[in-house]
Amino acid sequence: MLENIKIVLVETSHSGNIGSAARAMKTMGLSQLCLVAPKQEIDEQAIALAAGAEDVVKSAVVVESFSQAVADCSLVIGTSARLRHLQNTLIEPRECAEKVVQNLSSQKVAIVFGRERVGLTNDELLKCHYHLTIPANPEYSSLNLAMAVQLVSYELRMAWLALAEEQKQPFSVIENNYPTAQELEYFFAHTEQLYEHLGFIQNQGVMQKLRRLYQRTQIEKNELNILRGMLSAVEKRINRQN
Amino acid sequence: MLENIKIVLVETSHSGNIGSAARAMKTMGLSQLCLVAPKQEIDEQAIALAAGAEDVVKSAVVVESFSQAVADCSLVIGTSARLRHLQNTLIEPRECAEKVVQNLSSQKVAIVFGRERVGLTNDELLKCHYHLTIPANPEYSSLNLAMAVQLVSYELRMAWLALAEEQKQPFSVIENNYPTAQELEYFFAHTEQLYEHLGFIQNQGVMQKLRRLYQRTQIEKNELNILRGMLSAVEKRINRQN
Repeated sequence: MLENIKIVLVETSHSGNIGSAARAMKTMGLSQLCLVAPKQEIDEQAIALAAGAEDVVKSAVVVESFSQAVADCSLVIGTSARLRHLQNTLIEPRECAEKVVQNLSSQKVAIVFGRERVGLTNDELLKCHYHLTIPANPEYSSLNLAMAVQLVSYELRMAWLALAEEQKQPFSVIENNYPTAQELEYFFAHTEQLYEHLGFIQNQGVMQKLRRLYQRTQIEKNELNILRGMLSAVEKRINRQN
Repeated sequence: MLENIKIVLVETSHSGNIGSAARAMKTMGLSQLCLVAPKQEIDEQAIALAAGAEDVVKSAVVVESFSQAVADCSLVIGTSARLRHLQNTLIEPRECAEKVVQNLSSQKVAIVFGRERVGLTNDELLKCHYHLTIPANPEYSSLNLAMAVQLVSYELRMAWLALAEEQKQPFSVIENNYPTAQELEYFFAHTEQLYEHLGFIQNQGVMQKLRRLYQRTQIEKNELNILRGMLSAVEKRINRQN
């Protein structure tokens, strides 16, 4: 389903950024890359930075204009700074990803990243349904192009995984790795008895804190076995010496 | 408050990755960078890729070992592949960020990224409370180091913004309730020594499981004090009887 998402890079200046963006996409399961009039051809630098995502770079579609890139898409999202006149269509990556995956089985979506220095033109922004803005540090908001692609691709993957999880069948029975309440009670009783004998436990407070600790952590059977083994090891030594 | 988060890079091979990681951090408002035995010095390449985050690179703290890097932190999170034996302490960036920001006003947190090719060692992973794994494409999960820093920093910023939104009130100072990594190490060493002496610990497995248990639960200072008191109570009895 993620193949219905197209990442569009407009007039990218550095081929290395194309490679890094491809790598970022592939790590999140995206594969459709579209380049609008790139300033540098796909070259060695692009391939090197793509690393294992060479296939994404090599199958990238190159077009002449923004309009061509988004022609087959029914949802177009453009990245942008937090501009006042876009206020009503601004969305952040998480919300964006939720919108995108909702109807992904029935539509193609373009997510468009602008030029490294100047972003998208006003004319291009006007052709987008939504404007994506990353909630960066206001004192230094300059994300590298491929980093922005990475973040957005990550949120798309997260939303897609969440949706798949929602739609799954109820869970099958999982093997029981946790002790019963009774087993836990035996352990607490054993602990209390031994450390009272050692003179360490003299009031209720200690056991209450230990209960809170072990209950909070949802202790597993094999862990409980170790703790019980430790109690027995101490007892054995004490009995031997008495 | 984000200044209580330290990004730790262990034995980074390429100085460029240090620069890119610094830029990624700063775009999300993080500033504390710690380098464990970097393979390359901070050089021109690092500064160039840091772009406007030169200050983060230049103020990075360089230390000799993992332990030194995390010594003052009471929550240590290490990045890792999705390893089976870490199953119970694995968390994804979003959950991780929520955990981190929850107690950030009262504790220091380290998020540790391993070597470019081989990540963190098993010994290093054992010293982490949680293991952070990015839900990447299983067919190609190779995120560049700085990309991983970008994603994690982004989630930290998102969680921090959400918390600030929730709390709108100014933060009050909360007493620090969690032991440092060093205090926890003393406890583990003490436990190991005593139970080896009792003949209960005969291999590495037991200590690994105990570490996992206590790190997962993010033990509090007063709880650690009880566990240490229990060790001392046993020791006292044994010594009296010898």
